[in-house]
Amino acid sequence: MANNDVVVSGIRPTGVPHLGNLRGALQQWVDLQEKYPCFYFIADWHALFGLEERSREIKENTKKVLATLLAVGLDPEKSTIFIQSQVPEHLTLFTIFSAITPVGWLERNPTLKDMVRAEEPLPYGLLGYPVLQAADILLYKGTMVPVGKDQQPHLEISREIARRFNSLFGVEFFPEPQAVLNEYPVLPGTDGRKMSKSYSNVISIEDDHETVRFKVRQMITDPQKIRKSDPGHPDICSVFQLEKGFVDSAYSKDIYDRCVQGLLGCVEHKNMLADIIWQYLEPIREKYFYYLEHEEELWKIASYGNEKAEKVAKETMREVLDIIGL
Amino acid sequence: MANNDVVVSGIRPTGVPHLGNLRGALQQWVDLQEKYPCFYFIADWHALFGLEERSREIKENTKKVLATLLAVGLDPEKSTIFIQSQVPEHLTLFTIFSAITPVGWLERNPTLKDMVRAEEPLPYGLLGYPVLQAADILLYKGTMVPVGKDQQPHLEISREIARRFNSLFGVEFFPEPQAVLNEYPVLPGTDGRKMSKSYSNVISIEDDHETVRFKVRQMITDPQKIRKSDPGHPDICSVFQLEKGFVDSAYSKDIYDRCVQGLLGCVEHKNMLADIIWQYLEPIREKYFYYLEHEEELWKIASYGNEKAEKVAKETMREVLDIIGL
Ligand code: SF4
Ligand code: SF4
Repeated sequence: MANNDVVVSGIRPTGVPHLGNLRGALQQWVDLQEKYPCFYFIADWHALFGLEERSREIKENTKKVLATLLAVGLDPEKSTIFIQSQVPEHLTLFTIFSAITPVGWLERNPTLKDMVRAEEPLPYGLLGYPVLQAADILLYKGTMVPVGKDQQPHLEISREIARRFNSLFGVEFFPEPQAVLNEYPVLPGTDGRKMSKSYSNVISIEDDHETVRFKVRQMITDPQKIRKSDPGHPDICSVFQLEKGFVDSAYSKDIYDRCVQGLLGCVEHKNMLADIIWQYLEPIREKYFYYLEHEEELWKIASYGNEKAEKVAKETMREVLDIIGL
Repeated sequence: MANNDVVVSGIRPTGVPHLGNLRGALQQWVDLQEKYPCFYFIADWHALFGLEERSREIKENTKKVLATLLAVGLDPEKSTIFIQSQVPEHLTLFTIFSAITPVGWLERNPTLKDMVRAEEPLPYGLLGYPVLQAADILLYKGTMVPVGKDQQPHLEISREIARRFNSLFGVEFFPEPQAVLNEYPVLPGTDGRKMSKSYSNVISIEDDHETVRFKVRQMITDPQKIRKSDPGHPDICSVFQLEKGFVDSAYSKDIYDRCVQGLLGCVEHKNMLADIIWQYLEPIREKYFYYLEHEEELWKIASYGNEKAEKVAKETMREVLDIIGL
């Protein structure tokens, strides 16, 4: 735990978390909390920008995401776990950054197009998504931001905003946050594409054993492997790829060889994978439902995190207002 | 005081107020407080969008504008007089409106070009100026907005946002605010153009008697009137136009006739005008400096207004969050 590194990252409450989230971003969050001060937040304002009239879902999803964060092992003592909209300083800093961020920087954002639903006009708030993100990170003087590859251009804007603020006001105040890339492999969904709720190909934290088994059984394998004795091609098989997210490389290599040598059948392999996933998922799912059934405890933990975050946020804003003279 | 009309208007703390402000917008504010519930605020966030690095001036100007509001006769009991940045709900509603306002509406804003300093890139926040303005007004369910003609396109966006919110969520919640045009004549500055600090042609609330006299004496009159006996043309004379802001039409008609008939000389007329202005300005200026010298009293009045505003704002936000389900 050297120097002044601070980890900040957010998750949008736009759906029920799935295996791709659990074994990707959230596993990385859990790892990082052992080494750095971490601020993890539920980005409900960001969800609002993408959802508009479906805002009613945000509250419900906030609850589910919060329960997930606790279920996967984030520790409210080690990490600061909070809800963005409950710390009003996010919007204050957002507004100040809005005053110093040229629209041109945002229009050049290459991921902007992906975020917009094709048939709908771009909302003003969504255009400013990276400005709010800069505020989210810099409010806690975050230096390390676990992000997916698609989020890296946003982070470049965060650095530009930090630099612009520092140079406009002649200070060395905000750090320039750097991306922490995720080492976990991207999990395929049940259709072989990246697991994502927009593809409806997810195994969710709410799925029971039967559902997990059913979903894994539906997965497409190597079409050339009809019988167990046919030599398969694990590299193009999403059962094999999905399994990689849960086993070590020795296990994986063994499976590989047995498939290629015609010693493993697809039905058998799928049953094995379903069991592996269930073994991983069951205890997490159990904690998850525990928190959903004990809402009061859940919100108490949220309040605790909100207060911890607000304390830091207030201090940063005091300094910022002092620097800009407001 | 019929129905549910509510007046909302703001003034940007970007300089020392001048006669054009006092006899224009602020006089209208004073008139309206006798007939309607009024919310008048110092728009410091809006000032930030236009100033950026000159933010240090905002705090000083906020104090001066607040002192001016009290000096011209706004009554903290009749009106709610407050500072925008001290009521955090402005930014909350701004953010919610940001999520439902298409960027296209803002890009079409015809006054956008005038607000941008030519050589500089447009800040994201300035593009969203009308969205924040909609939040400013609708947070208090404002129905009447005293505005200059140049602000009318912004108000149209406020109505569009109110309609879009109501229709997205199937409610009749926000009213559609209407412009209340100012009946007071636009005052010319000392150079004959509209009085405006960007033309450096103002008589400010801080000018003393000597300065007022000096500035009026420098004014250009009808160039064809050299001697008192020359027939003048008051219609093209800014001394005559400026005077109109302070006298009744009978007085004005008398002056008109005497100028045309060669019975009034320009030097004499200017001395008369300087005295008229001073008679108007002196008591206001005195109260103004009183408040600047009694800062504690000034900030106490501001706190009182901030709290009154916040109470209404909190109630509106409670309803809004309930409607959108956050
Ligand atoms: S045995 Fe396993 S890895 Fe091989 S094709 Fe079948 S499902 Fe895929
Ligand atoms: S007498 Fe007065 S109104 Fe006539 S030209 Fe001179 S200054 Fe203007």
